[in-house]
Amino acid sequence: MKIYETRTAPNPRRVRMFMAEKGLLDKAEFVELDLQKGENLTPEFVQKNPMKKVPVMELDDGACISETMAICRYFEEAYPDTRPLLGTSALEKAQLEQWLRWIEYYQFMPTGMCFQHSTGYFKDRMTPVKEWGEECAKQVASFYGFLNEHLEGRDYIYGDDLTAADINAFCAVEFAKVMKIRIEPDQLHLQAWYERIKARPSAKV
Amino acid sequence: MKIYETRTAPNPRRVRMFMAEKGLLDKAEFVELDLQKGENLTPEFVQKNPMKKVPVMELDDGACISETMAICRYFEEAYPDTRPLLGTSALEKAQLEQWLRWIEYYQFMPTGMCFQHSTGYFKDRMTPVKEWGEECAKQVASFYGFLNEHLEGRDYIYGDDLTAADINAFCAVEFAKVMKIRIEPDQLHLQAWYERIKARPSAKV
Ligand SMILES: N[C@@H](CCC(=O)N[C@@H](CS)C(=O)NCC(=O)O)C(=O)O
Ligand SMILES: N[C@@H](CCC(=O)N[C@@H](CS)C(=O)NCC(=O)O)C(=O)O
Repeated sequence: MKIYETRTAPNPRRVRMFMAEKGLLDKAEFVELDLQKGENLTPEFVQKNPMKKVPVMELDDGACISETMAICRYFEEAYPDTRPLLGTSALEKAQLEQWLRWIEYYQFMPTGMCFQHSTGYFKDRMTPVKEWGEECAKQVASFYGFLNEHLEGRDYIYGDDLTAADINAFCAVEFAKVMKIRIEPDQLHLQAWYERIKARPSAKV
Repeated sequence: MKIYETRTAPNPRRVRMFMAEKGLLDKAEFVELDLQKGENLTPEFVQKNPMKKVPVMELDDGACISETMAICRYFEEAYPDTRPLLGTSALEKAQLEQWLRWIEYYQFMPTGMCFQHSTGYFKDRMTPVKEWGEECAKQVASFYGFLNEHLEGRDYIYGDDLTAADINAFCAVEFAKVMKIRIEPDQLHLQAWYERIKARPSAKV
């Protein structure tokens, strides 16, 4: 199967990191698209994902799956003997889903919108609103404060081991540096967690 | 267990509809909160959900689960003998997750933001931006066009039977009427689907 992606983009990165943690990186061929050149806007690509975003996974029979968490769920379900990253019991799966949603809505999405609205990287296809970008940056900073408190006395965001919640929050923190949004010097729990995740081989793929 | 909710709000509605389709409505006691009076902003409630939103499910041991889709996932996983609403095979679960994400990002969230920004219902706790509300309304209308085309020749959004995708899209369409966002007269496939879902007993709970 194939994964259409862009190496420097944060959403594809979380798919690669998820696959790496499961030892599944060799299951797909990665196809690089240049987003700034609009290689995700061609009629061929829109056939694969009408929303015109990467990552997209294409199975050998041509079936396509868009959306990062949908691709991750595929690997979680199709390879049950690999390290679980989306929880095991009903309660774990549900509480982890809560964390994944919080990270998505209050950190990952505002980080992405801050990028689009403050850098104008995609200004050929959307109208950047500087004030909105700044609002999103504040939202991200406020979530860092929340995460820092939550991580006091914990090694991982949910439960006793790494999950997709750590992967998603980590990829957002890394991407936020582009917009100079950084962990504050006094956010010691968040910083320790960040270094813990960064030290994993999966953070390099 | 308890579910803290608000009967007229769209997120709790999708939880009730999900539970009704599984025959699980009697598993929880529903506790009504008045959002406009700020009953979701009290210290007791913030303990249950730091994001201050309904729905929240509280298990008998006090463990809480926020986020609509996290609560739905709990019921899907904890009651495996009920009608599956989140897919069965790995591919189905993944492709359905893709649809759920599309509906969330391109329909449900813009509908909710249109409500907040165009009605000023929560203006005691956020600053409504009229233009943003209008932008969101356009986004919803454009998704209706996409859904209408997708539903040509189909009874349900994904696969041959009702799933959470239908529940979520339906609850968004119902809520959008408050802002006078309606299915267009020429969107016949979307209209037929809407009536099909509306006829289910679960649409009345
Ligand atoms: N909700 C989607 C978001 C995907 C997304 O926004 N991808 C970005 C790259 S990280 C993209 O393709 N941007 C190109 C564009 O907006 O034209 C997911 O989780 O996969
Ligand atoms: N992502 C959350 C959204 C929950 C949400 O926005 N709930 C609304 C009611 S539908 C709410 O509690 N609003 C109160 C407020 O914003 O103060 C979910 O899926 O449950």
